[in-house]
Amino acid sequence: MTTKPDYGQHYLVDFRRCDPETLRFVGPTREIFLRAARESKATLVGDDFYQFDPEGVSGVILIAESHLIVHTWPEDGFAAVDIFTFGDEMDAEVAIAVLKAGFRAEEAVVRVHTRGRLDEAESGGAIVG
Amino acid sequence: MTTKPDYGQHYLVDFRRCDPETLRFVGPTREIFLRAARESKATLVGDDFYQFDPEGVSGVILIAESHLIVHTWPEDGFAAVDIFTFGDEMDAEVAIAVLKAGFRAEEAVVRVHTRGRLDEAESGGAIVG
Repeated sequence: MTTKPDYGQHYLVDFRRCDPETLRFVGPTREIFLRAARESKATLVGDDFYQFDPEGVSGVILIAESHLIVHTWPEDGFAAVDIFTFGDEMDAEVAIAVLKAGFRAEEAVVRVHTRGRLDEAESGGAIVG
Repeated sequence: MTTKPDYGQHYLVDFRRCDPETLRFVGPTREIFLRAARESKATLVGDDFYQFDPEGVSGVILIAESHLIVHTWPEDGFAAVDIFTFGDEMDAEVAIAVLKAGFRAEEAVVRVHTRGRLDEAESGGAIVG
């Protein structure tokens, strides 16, 4: 039944040596994340952010193009983000640039995967079952 | 500031040739997803599921260990899932098995990444900026 060449691009981005102040609480983290979604032309469907005690945030923005999600470790200045985008509307590179600036990250490590590719050898996946 | 050896395992799983009935509406998709979270010993923090018109679902379960998220293409019998888990409590392999059975997928293509590894060469990431 699979008829599409692929199901979009999935970016896994590790932001290192961030400003911890941007990662501690929902307020600043959510603001930076929403800005990244808007500036990258994503179509917002909904968002949810959770505060961990005493600090640290998990948050998701569901978008028509799929999702942006973040988990922060302010004590280490570290944020793990993933951006999954289907179609040509949204520019994930813009989102990554906005997040890097917003978190004041000294480094962003980016991995990109194409989802649902039929040529497994290229996609690097292992077929299970 | 980065003191941890890594920040957990990120599984990208493409489920192919699923039963489309399990992917069309929030009800069945959410039920299967919550079962996968529970049986894999994840600690649920919150969940949100969105219905696309006329069919198709995006849903997220935020967990203390990070997240499970799904996007479905029922017309193709395809579901893109990712499971990000930090620590040893949750067994992502159990979640994948529950989802594969629940979606009645004939095939699951699994990619696993370690987040935040210091040895970039092994992690396969590109450092940006």
